[in-house]
Order: sequence, then structure tokens, then C-alpha cells
Amino acid sequence: MKFNYECLNCNINQVLKTTSLLEINENVKEVIVRKVLLYLGQVDYNKSNPEILKGTYKIITTELQVSDPYYSLKILYNRAALDLASRVKEIIEESNNSLNTALKMAIVGNLIDFASGRFVDENILQEAIELVDKKSLKIDHSQELFLDLNKKKTLLYLGDNCGEIVFDKIFISYLKKVNPQLEVTYAVRGQAIINDVTLNDSRMVKMEEVAKVISNGDGASGTVLKDTSLEFQSHFAKADVIIAKGQGNFESLSESLNDNIYFLLMAKCDLVAKVLNIEKGSIVCIKS
Amino acid sequence: MKFNYECLNCNINQVLKTTSLLEINENVKEVIVRKVLLYLGQVDYNKSNPEILKGTYKIITTELQVSDPYYSLKILYNRAALDLASRVKEIIEESNNSLNTALKMAIVGNLIDFASGRFVDENILQEAIELVDKKSLKIDHSQELFLDLNKKKTLLYLGDNCGEIVFDKIFISYLKKVNPQLEVTYAVRGQAIINDVTLNDSRMVKMEEVAKVISNGDGASGTVLKDTSLEFQSHFAKADVIIAKGQGNFESLSESLNDNIYFLLMAKCDLVAKVLNIEKGSIVCIKS
Repeated sequence: MKFNYECLNCNINQVLKTTSLLEINENVKEVIVRKVLLYLGQVDYNKSNPEILKGTYKIITTELQVSDPYYSLKILYNRAALDLASRVKEIIEESNNSLNTALKMAIVGNLIDFASGRFVDENILQEAIELVDKKSLKIDHSQELFLDLNKKKTLLYLGDNCGEIVFDKIFISYLKKVNPQLEVTYAVRGQAIINDVTLNDSRMVKMEEVAKVISNGDGASGTVLKDTSLEFQSHFAKADVIIAKGQGNFESLSESLNDNIYFLLMAKCDLVAKVLNIEKGSIVCIKS
Repeated sequence: MKFNYECLNCNINQVLKTTSLLEINENVKEVIVRKVLLYLGQVDYNKSNPEILKGTYKIITTELQVSDPYYSLKILYNRAALDLASRVKEIIEESNNSLNTALKMAIVGNLIDFASGRFVDENILQEAIELVDKKSLKIDHSQELFLDLNKKKTLLYLGDNCGEIVFDKIFISYLKKVNPQLEVTYAVRGQAIINDVTLNDSRMVKMEEVAKVISNGDGASGTVLKDTSLEFQSHFAKADVIIAKGQGNFESLSESLNDNIYFLLMAKCDLVAKVLNIEKGSIVCIKS
């Protein structure tokens, strides 16, 4: 999905939110704002927004001389999600269709996303979890996904945000319950960007208990294939099935030629909602 | 009110809305977007947003080679408001407090504003008019305004948007009914900017029937005093009372040292609502 001018505001909001969260002084903030505007005025708009946002974030972290401004907040969100894990498993167990509920839980976990302006408190997340079975997938290719996963051997799961990763792990454990032969590789970002998952987060939630964990080698808030490591590209090429979580992965991979990608996401901005012809806040499981 | 970084999105949205309304081709749109971003990256943030927005609008109109892109739409909105005028007068007449209702009508007419993203249809405006007496001023210095206007001789009325100007004229006619000695000067923008009133609009609604009409000599979407004509500045200095309509006039004059300005506006963006500590959509009459 090519960059859209509406994403300019998303880039600017990222600057405002990060500098506000970190209580950056006005002079430094002004330098960042000006540099980001000049960058946005010259960048190649044929790129996807996650690729362009990477440049914006690079300016922020360079000026602040902090490589990972959200470090402590990410730990907090992982902990909050870990605290909810046993209740999430309970709800999934009690459901008539555990696999389907586990999938929807993984998407609802995507509520935890600083990039789209949400600093979700635990109550909102808890409520979303309790109501998960009242929410239906607005585009639903999940049956095809589950059939594929039963027949195939390898799954590459592209992570998205911290906190949410706890729900990913639970979903993966259900997928492996259904098909114990399934080999799952969980990919995280290669560098910190906003609240996207990195190796720190996968370690914190012990993702290695259910999947082989790899870094994608890049620092975009999505999967910009050409910028990822050769190791990641090889996994991407060989995987039988790919699950790509969140808007960032959708925006950067929606034009991929692979026909084995399932995008699991909540539409968090007007633009993605419009592209998918659904209401903002809707959840979907879409085959590429 | 100094420019706030939140206003960056407002400037960018103005580019997107105008180019979309005029169905500008992608290449021209890209040139405008890039130029505006470079401009916003270098402009002096000590200015007010109306002053900065003037530069953004200048880039748009220069690139499009159209000095007044909203020309025909403004006529349409003036006509729509003129069609409602007799009903507006009826409601005011039937009210227990005609002067107060006329004042609120003048503010509600401010619903017609393309700058803040509203392309209001006639039904919404009609509904707002019918319900005007259910809406109360969230900050209300109107009694002081009316007392002032009874005692004083000259009123300078700073217009805001097309369409709305019809309601201004009705309000002014009521002010003159109460104080027939009141000399009213109605000021319009010196150049076209978005849907702000110019001499074209004042002629169309026959403002000269109730007021002397002058241009402020400038093309900002507000009143940037230093850029206005000497004639306007002289009126501004000598007027007993000044009524400044809309957000643009508030943003550009809120730090004025004059203590005789009454700001009549509807808070249309989060920032102005926050500054005034009211909810977005609220209407106010505030003495400087």
C-alpha cells in the first residue's frame, strides 16, 4: 500500500506524541519538527508509510539521542498483557470455537498500539477481551487459514506490537495444539521503532516456548522486504504460510506477490478502513 | 494565540481538501504537498496559525494558478444562507430574548466553514438554526457586550466566513434596532482565502444596508493586524467596540492588548477548545 498524503499527519503525530511523552523541551521539539517536515517534503512517496515512518522515527531518536524512547513503556504493556494471559486462555477455553476466539484475541491485542494514538489502559483491554466473541471478523478468511495450517508444515508469524505479542503466543499455542507438526517462526523487528516487538519483547514473554524467534533485521514499523536481512528473506520465501499482524505489516506487504499471506489486523485509521471498505475499529483476517 | 504544532495537520488538511475538491491531478498535488511541507519546516512558529495558513494557501493558489478556488462554492453557501434568512428572522422574533438569539445565530452560522473540515449541508444548518435557543453560550460575556454597545457609538465587526455573513447582517440589524445611533463598520478580508468573506460576499448579501463595509487589506484567515491596511488599522484603533467572529480572528487577535474586543465563535478544533477549556462544538462570547 503506497504512502498516502493522509499519512503525513500520522508521521507528524508520531513526533508530537513521542516528544510529549518524553517531555522534551520546546527547542529540541522545534528542531525535530522542522527536520521531519523537511524530510517529509523530500521523501519518495512511492514508498509505503512504514518505510517513510522509519525515517521520521530515525530523526526523532537521533535528535533525542535515545535509540528506544518507549523502552520502559513497552515493558509495562508486556506486563499488563501477561497479567491478562490466564483470563484470555480461560475465555478461549470456554468458547465454542477456541481456535477462532484465539485468533480474534490476537487481533484484539492489537489495541495496544502507540503509533495510532492509543495509549490503552488495562481496563479498555480487559473489556475488549471479555467481549471478544461479540466481535466478528468483518472480512473473514480464517477457515482457509486454518485449513492451510493443517495441511502445511511451516508458519512464519510476523509480530507487531508489544503487549499484543502475549496474545500472539497464546494463538500460536492453539495452532500447535491443532497441528502439533507445525513449525512456527516468529519474526520481530530488527531495531526498536515505537512499540513494535523486538527480541527484548519476545524474550520477556518467552515466545521461544512455542516458536523459533528471528529478527527481520530492519527497523521499519512493518515489513519492508528489501530492507530485511537475508536470513529473514529466506524464511519469508520458504514459509508455507505467513501470518502478518497489524496495520504496519499490511501497509508494507499488501502489494506483495506472495499468495500465502494472511493479514490479521484491526483497522485503526480512516485510510486503512477505507482501503478495506470496513469501519474503523473493525477486525479482519484477509488472505493476500 | 501562537501557532501550535497541532496546527501543522490543519495546514496539511487544507492542501488535501482543496486539491481534492478541485480534483487536481496527482503530479500537481505532489508539487503542492512538497512545497507546503518545506514551507512549514522553515516558517516562524511565533506567528499565529492564520498567518502561517496564509502562506500555505498562497502556495496552493500560486501552483493552481487560481486566486480564489472556492469562488463558486462561496456563492452557493451565501445563497443557502440567504434562503434561510427569513426563517432565521422569524426564530429571532419569536424568541424571548431576540438580541441574545440573534447573537447566537451569528455564531451558529459559523458552522459554514470549509477550513475546519466542514462542508455543511443545508439540512444540518437548518437544524442548528431551529435548535439555536437550546444551545447556550459556554462562556458568556454577552450582557457586557450589549451594555457596551448601548453606551458606545462605533462598532467594528470583523467578518469571518461566507454564508455566515448573512447571519452577521441580521445580528447587526438587531444591534441597530436597540441602538439606532450605532455606527457599524463591517470588515472583510482583503484577498480571498478559503471561504472567508471578501467584498464579493458583502455585496452579494447587501451588507451595506446595515454597515459601512471595508476591506482589511490582508489575505490571512484572521486579522493579522501588522499586515492589514492603514485604513483598517485606523478603524481598529478608533472603534469603541470590536466584534471578532470565528476561530481565525480569535487565534490572531487573542493576544491583542485591546480590551474592547468581543470574540464570538464556535470552537471547531481540539486546540481552541482546550485553550478555552470548553468542549469542541461549544459557542462562546468572550471579552478580551
